[in-house]
Amino acid sequence: MPSFQSSDLATRLNGELVGPGDLTVIGIEQVDLAKPGHLTFVGDEKYAPLWASSKAIAVITTSAMNLTPGEGRALILVKNVDLATANALHLFAPPKVAPKTGVHPAAVVDPTATLGKDVAIGPGCVVGAHVSLGDGCILHANVTVMDHSTIGPRTELYPGVVVRDRCSIGALCIIHPNAVIGADGFGYRPSDDPAKPGIVKIPQIGTVIIGNDVEIGAGTCIDRGKCSATTVGDGTKIDNMVQVGHNVRIGRCCIICGQCGIAGSTILEDGVTLGGKVAVKDHITIGRGATIAATAAIMGDVPPGVTWGGYPARDMRTALREHAAVRKLPDLIKEYTRAQRG
Amino acid sequence: MPSFQSSDLATRLNGELVGPGDLTVIGIEQVDLAKPGHLTFVGDEKYAPLWASSKAIAVITTSAMNLTPGEGRALILVKNVDLATANALHLFAPPKVAPKTGVHPAAVVDPTATLGKDVAIGPGCVVGAHVSLGDGCILHANVTVMDHSTIGPRTELYPGVVVRDRCSIGALCIIHPNAVIGADGFGYRPSDDPAKPGIVKIPQIGTVIIGNDVEIGAGTCIDRGKCSATTVGDGTKIDNMVQVGHNVRIGRCCIICGQCGIAGSTILEDGVTLGGKVAVKDHITIGRGATIAATAAIMGDVPPGVTWGGYPARDMRTALREHAAVRKLPDLIKEYTRAQRG
Amino acid sequence: MPSFQSSDLATRLNGELVGPGDLTVIGIEQVDLAKPGHLTFVGDEKYAPLWASSKAIAVITTSAMNLTPGEGRALILVKNVDLATANALHLFAPPKVAPKTGVHPAAVVDPTATLGKDVAIGPGCVVGAHVSLGDGCILHANVTVMDHSTIGPRTELYPGVVVRDRCSIGALCIIHPNAVIGADGFGYRPSDDPAKPGIVKIPQIGTVIIGNDVEIGAGTCIDRGKCSATTVGDGTKIDNMVQVGHNVRIGRCCIICGQCGIAGSTILEDGVTLGGKVAVKDHITIGRGATIAATAAIMGDVPPGVTWGGYPARDMRTALREHAAVRKLPDLIKEYTRAQRG
Repeated sequence: MPSFQSSDLATRLNGELVGPGDLTVIGIEQVDLAKPGHLTFVGDEKYAPLWASSKAIAVITTSAMNLTPGEGRALILVKNVDLATANALHLFAPPKVAPKTGVHPAAVVDPTATLGKDVAIGPGCVVGAHVSLGDGCILHANVTVMDHSTIGPRTELYPGVVVRDRCSIGALCIIHPNAVIGADGFGYRPSDDPAKPGIVKIPQIGTVIIGNDVEIGAGTCIDRGKCSATTVGDGTKIDNMVQVGHNVRIGRCCIICGQCGIAGSTILEDGVTLGGKVAVKDHITIGRGATIAATAAIMGDVPPGVTWGGYPARDMRTALREHAAVRKLPDLIKEYTRAQRG
Repeated sequence: MPSFQSSDLATRLNGELVGPGDLTVIGIEQVDLAKPGHLTFVGDEKYAPLWASSKAIAVITTSAMNLTPGEGRALILVKNVDLATANALHLFAPPKVAPKTGVHPAAVVDPTATLGKDVAIGPGCVVGAHVSLGDGCILHANVTVMDHSTIGPRTELYPGVVVRDRCSIGALCIIHPNAVIGADGFGYRPSDDPAKPGIVKIPQIGTVIIGNDVEIGAGTCIDRGKCSATTVGDGTKIDNMVQVGHNVRIGRCCIICGQCGIAGSTILEDGVTLGGKVAVKDHITIGRGATIAATAAIMGDVPPGVTWGGYPARDMRTALREHAAVRKLPDLIKEYTRAQRG
Repeated sequence: MPSFQSSDLATRLNGELVGPGDLTVIGIEQVDLAKPGHLTFVGDEKYAPLWASSKAIAVITTSAMNLTPGEGRALILVKNVDLATANALHLFAPPKVAPKTGVHPAAVVDPTATLGKDVAIGPGCVVGAHVSLGDGCILHANVTVMDHSTIGPRTELYPGVVVRDRCSIGALCIIHPNAVIGADGFGYRPSDDPAKPGIVKIPQIGTVIIGNDVEIGAGTCIDRGKCSATTVGDGTKIDNMVQVGHNVRIGRCCIICGQCGIAGSTILEDGVTLGGKVAVKDHITIGRGATIAATAAIMGDVPPGVTWGGYPARDMRTALREHAAVRKLPDLIKEYTRAQRG
């Protein structure tokens, strides 16, 4: 990791230095785990008491946190701790790991594929016929992109990612390891052949279209549409092991946390946030800017802008009020029954 | 995509044409997203009003929907819209993408493996010792099949699928990307060695046996048995990211939606349906033909034929009645408390 | 599979033989599925009645189960059926399947990587720069280990595992197929650039540190820390498709069942057990030795040693009492309303 003088760091983070400017800062770590020479960050009252005993040499904080630097340590006062911390993380980031520009000899690229400038394709990758990879795309090791798919400029696919045929991924996306884009949607019909009863597959001839600046987590699966496209809008961030069913349409700048499941043909309008493990029914709409608490079960349309939670999900305050009421129920039933008898 | 005359389409879909027979149909799309030249489908009253303003040139529908073709457009009246739509999807399906017949030079196939006729093995595949692949099997890129496993005729394994050793998969199955068949079951015992306390792995020496015509979703994991086989019956369809624990026995023609989890040694009899994200306890039985609503938590045996849901799961109507009762509870407690005081 | 004489088996399992010692035992199977020649095991009253009609030739059991051998069959009486069964599974285990020692010609290993003695690297593996693999490590086919990661001695990585850069995995670990270690944590901040509103990625420059003797299930994802390490303690066992968020710290000898999700910065102290599909909130602590029932939603700190369950989770007995109360609620409301009116 690189190292910085405390005065230099304060300047780079657009902060005010309180304390010595000649401290050598060699890394960044959270306040309870910091080691000597580390920069840390305190933007929340909960963590403020930990600064006094932290081994960190400097802290990104706000004047509202009311910290004192202490002997031989420095504060870097900023307006927005999260923003300054993110910038500090960029400063201390180790060099990016990526395959070299060009096609690794142990990759298999179909001669009909179109590769942009400065594409990097790692060993074990398989790139199908008529695939198009934009300028600066990175395919880490063991990525598979099947025929006729398109990957936009500067998009990065981590090891084990599978992009099925005819899918489209925009520019500047990051797809984490073992994510699957464009597997068949889950669609069946009862057999109409009395000689062969059972369940018959409905062809899934649609595709997946992912916008720009989208991040897709490890192991996440986005199924292709039945005849349309399953779509993910620009700037949306999807965490690990999220299931997105066929024909789902996810808007722009949504945040979808780990292990959510979104059933077929559902619409998430722009700016929707789903906490972890949320279940969303098929064929419904979650309105613009709605926030759904972790583990909620969404069983119908959700209006724009609301905060919902619970099982089944409803307005969050209502859900909490009902949870509290259920807490009282056993004693209440006992009391009521006694009163009735009595 | 291929194109069809409207009269030709009506014939192929076994429907009655209402409107011009010389329209050129170039694709199929859902009613709200259709573009000029598209065929669409309306089998549900909910979507019927969208036909008038749809850009589609033709629609698969039933006489019950009461649509009128409108200027220069056609109806194709059928008995079963789902069936006719599925057939239409077949007509418009793009050519299948698959590796060429034979073994790609960048695949590694053990010399003791047995390959049927017309097997296609893509680049990056690794096929272990004594593996048997039936006639017409397709292994897309980067598939791994470990020693002594058997894959039946015309089964298709998508990129990144891993089949561990000694597993058996039937004919005509489809295994979607990054699914894992035959990983060790999750079995441990407390250490009996006081010098090394902790948790000790129980060997998982069983296997997985999957029937014919089974579909297994992307990222789904089916663990091998402790000493027996974990089994999946003919015709069963499993969606993405489903966890099937060791020694589970799943019957024929079951439907298991995304992100379900089935704990060890549980039995699903034939024709069971699990909605998305259902949790099923270990060592229980779900009876033949039972339907479990999405997000239900199954904590004990379920009788055949019932519809259950909720947390913990019970008869669905009971669950809904209880949900409704809980909705009323906070106000009721307030009223009751006031009455008691008053 | 190897075969054993019943007398020999009894000796090897440290048990007392009741019945003939010259029976040939050719495998091990659960009591209802056993075939002629099989050894079985009965340690639970529930399964004791099945012994009489079982086709097994011998049974591991305790005197408390009160079984009689029957004609031409034998009991092997032991103190601990689970332990003896585990030992029997070892006896009957088929030979281990693993790539040959050395580097397969179809693997790509960076010349700067350090390989211990007797390392086995299968075809399709990609091992990055400055990776270190301890003595006796096994990388099955198509594993990817990125730059600067370290894998301890005798650790086994199954096909499709991805270890991102700068991660550390201890000795004697087992990582099952398609697990992902060290993907970026899910961290964003609102843009501070009015010209480019939206969500901005926070660099995830931390790492993952996994102790010794850890097992990680198929498809499980353990994200790297924001600046610290996400850690998993010695002896912990994690099942399939578990999501471990960034900066999580999991103690020693924890058991985490399938499809659990643990949100960022949460701490599991030593010896915690999570049943299947448990959801755990971010930034909380689950105390030493606590047990969480399957499908629970943990929304705050959990004290050491307790058993919690439910949605939201609370003491398990309280949760069950409340579930029972809700069962009565609809009828109670009906009765109460009638009484009020009446």
